[in-house]
Amino acid sequence: MAFTFPPPAHVVPLRLSRAGPPCPRRSSSSFSAFPTPPIPSRMEQQMMSTKASKLMEFPHLLAPHRDTMLGLISAIENRLGNHLLPSSVPSDVEYYQNESGTSQGTLSIRCGVDTSPIDFILASWLHLEQGGGAMEITNIAGYLKSSTDIPHFQFELVQCSPTFLILFLDLIPRKDTVLHPDYLKTFYEDTQLEACRQRLARLPEVQPYFSSSLYFRRVVSSTGILVGIKCEDGGTGTGTERVEEIIGEHIGPIANEVMRIWLDMCVDGGVREVSEIEQRAELEKRDKLIKRKAIEMDLSSSMPKQFGHEVADRVLRVIKSAYNIT
Amino acid sequence: MAFTFPPPAHVVPLRLSRAGPPCPRRSSSSFSAFPTPPIPSRMEQQMMSTKASKLMEFPHLLAPHRDTMLGLISAIENRLGNHLLPSSVPSDVEYYQNESGTSQGTLSIRCGVDTSPIDFILASWLHLEQGGGAMEITNIAGYLKSSTDIPHFQFELVQCSPTFLILFLDLIPRKDTVLHPDYLKTFYEDTQLEACRQRLARLPEVQPYFSSSLYFRRVVSSTGILVGIKCEDGGTGTGTERVEEIIGEHIGPIANEVMRIWLDMCVDGGVREVSEIEQRAELEKRDKLIKRKAIEMDLSSSMPKQFGHEVADRVLRVIKSAYNIT
Repeated sequence: MAFTFPPPAHVVPLRLSRAGPPCPRRSSSSFSAFPTPPIPSRMEQQMMSTKASKLMEFPHLLAPHRDTMLGLISAIENRLGNHLLPSSVPSDVEYYQNESGTSQGTLSIRCGVDTSPIDFILASWLHLEQGGGAMEITNIAGYLKSSTDIPHFQFELVQCSPTFLILFLDLIPRKDTVLHPDYLKTFYEDTQLEACRQRLARLPEVQPYFSSSLYFRRVVSSTGILVGIKCEDGGTGTGTERVEEIIGEHIGPIANEVMRIWLDMCVDGGVREVSEIEQRAELEKRDKLIKRKAIEMDLSSSMPKQFGHEVADRVLRVIKSAYNIT
Repeated sequence: MAFTFPPPAHVVPLRLSRAGPPCPRRSSSSFSAFPTPPIPSRMEQQMMSTKASKLMEFPHLLAPHRDTMLGLISAIENRLGNHLLPSSVPSDVEYYQNESGTSQGTLSIRCGVDTSPIDFILASWLHLEQGGGAMEITNIAGYLKSSTDIPHFQFELVQCSPTFLILFLDLIPRKDTVLHPDYLKTFYEDTQLEACRQRLARLPEVQPYFSSSLYFRRVVSSTGILVGIKCEDGGTGTGTERVEEIIGEHIGPIANEVMRIWLDMCVDGGVREVSEIEQRAELEKRDKLIKRKAIEMDLSSSMPKQFGHEVADRVLRVIKSAYNIT
C-alpha cells in the first residue's frame, strides 16, 4: 500500500504467480527463513541465506526503528505462525537494487494456509539514496481473504530525513463504514482504537499528514494514524535523538497495540465468516480497487526513477500478475 | 448535520411533516421572507416579520461572520432562486429559545421544486449562553434528491469562544469513493476542491479537527475542511481581531468558492440523473443513515440541556417526523 509517499512498488501487497502459484503449500517457516524448496542446491542456499539476512537485518535503520519492525514480525510469528506458509516471492524480487547498488529493496510475502482467514502477510524495507540523503521505508501489511470482513492491517514507517518521519498505521476497513455503522462499531469503536491514535497525536511533533492522493485519504479508517513527525534539529543533533525516542517509546508500543488488536480479531474470536457469494464479491471488488489504485500510482512514479526500468518492470510485472491486472 | 460539536438539533437538516406536507408548493420567495400563506392575518404578518429578521440579522455574530452567512445565502438565492419554495418550518421551530431567553435558535428550510435536483436548503443560527460565555453556531446546508448523486453542501461555522472557531465546510459524498473512484474524480479531483482546503490549512492558526464521532469522520470527503482555528489572545484583544480577519479574508472567500463549485454542479452542467431504482434506493439508504446518526446524537446530547425538554422535544419531534424515524 502506498499511502505515505510517492509510492514505491514494494509497498503494494502482492501475490506471485510468475514463479508458480502464489502460495505453494509448504510447511510453515519463519520470516527469516526464505523460501526453502525441499532440496535446494548449494548456490541456491547461499542466495537465500544472503537475502534472508538482508530482510531481517534492516541494515540502514535507527535501532528503535529496526526493533519495532522485528517486534511486529515476531508478534505475527507467535500468533499466526501456524496460519502461514513460507514466503514465495521470486528471488530477484525478494532482494533487488539499482545499477549502482545505492538503492535497495527487500520483500517477503507469506500466504495463509487454506483454513486461515489470512490471505497474506507482507514485510519489507526499502533504502533509497537520493540527493545526498537517504530515505528508509519499512512496511508490514496483513491482508485477509474475502471469506471474512476483518479489516486489513497496515504499518508503514518512513524516515524521510534524520529529523522527519511519516507513519501510516491502520486497520483498513473492508466496507463503507457510513453505510455499515455496525462494522465501525465492531472493529473501531468497541476495540478502543481511537485511544491509540490520540496517544500519538498528543506529542507536539506529531501532525496529521495528508496524502497527495485523494483516493487514499478515503481508504484510511476513522481511527487511522496518518501523521508526519518533525523533530527540529537546530544543528545539535537533538532532533535525531528525539526521533529515536519517539519511535522507541511511542510508535513502537502503539504499533504493537494496534497489531495486538488486529491479531485478536484474526485468531481469538475473530473469524467473521462471510458466506454469501454476493458479499464476498463486494469485498473482493473493493479490495481490488484499492490495489489497482496503488499499482497505477507505482507504475507512473517512483519505482522506475529509483531502480531503473528493468528492475521496476520486473517488480511491477510481478505485482500486476499477482493481481490479475494487465 | 452535527460534525463539529456536541450537536444541537438545529444542525440536522430536516423536513417538516408536522405542519402539513414538508414542501407545500408555493411560489418562490427569499430567505428573509418566511412562510407567507396567501392571506396572512395582521398578527401572523407581525410574527413572521419578527422571525424573518431574526434569521437574517444574525444578531450575535462578529461582522465578518454575519457577512459570510449573508453572502452564502445571497449566492444561493441568485443561483437557485427559481429552484426553491418558501420555507415551510412551523413557527415555533423557526424561532425558539430557552425559558430565560438567553439561548436562541432559528431555522429556515426551503424545499426544491419538483423539477429541481435540490431536495432542500437549510439555513440557521444558534446562540448559546453557558458558563459565562456564549457560543455562536451557524449552518447552511444544501441537500440533493436521490434523482441525482451530486454531493450535498455543508457549511458550519462555530464560534466557541472569542478566540476559537470550528469550521466544517464540505461537499459530502453520496457514495463510497473507495468503491467509486470515478465519483471522486468527477466531484473532487476535477473540481480542484483540494486547493481550497490547502489555502486554509496554510494559516498557522488552523489545525485539523477530529470529531468525537468516528462515524462522522467518515462522512467527510477527501477534501473536506474540518478544522479548529485558535487565535492566541494574550489579554490584548488581538486574538479576537485575528479571528475577524481569518473569517473575513479566508473563511468567507473559501466558503464562497466551495459553494460556487457546488452551485455549478447543481445548476450549470450538473444534473447527474440517477434513473435506476436500485441506485436511488442505495443513495437514499446512505443519506438516511447519516441523518439517523445525527439525530441519535442530538437526542442524547445538547438540545435538552440548552433549551429544556419542552423545546428540545418539539424540535426533535419535528426532525424525527421529517425523517420518518420513530
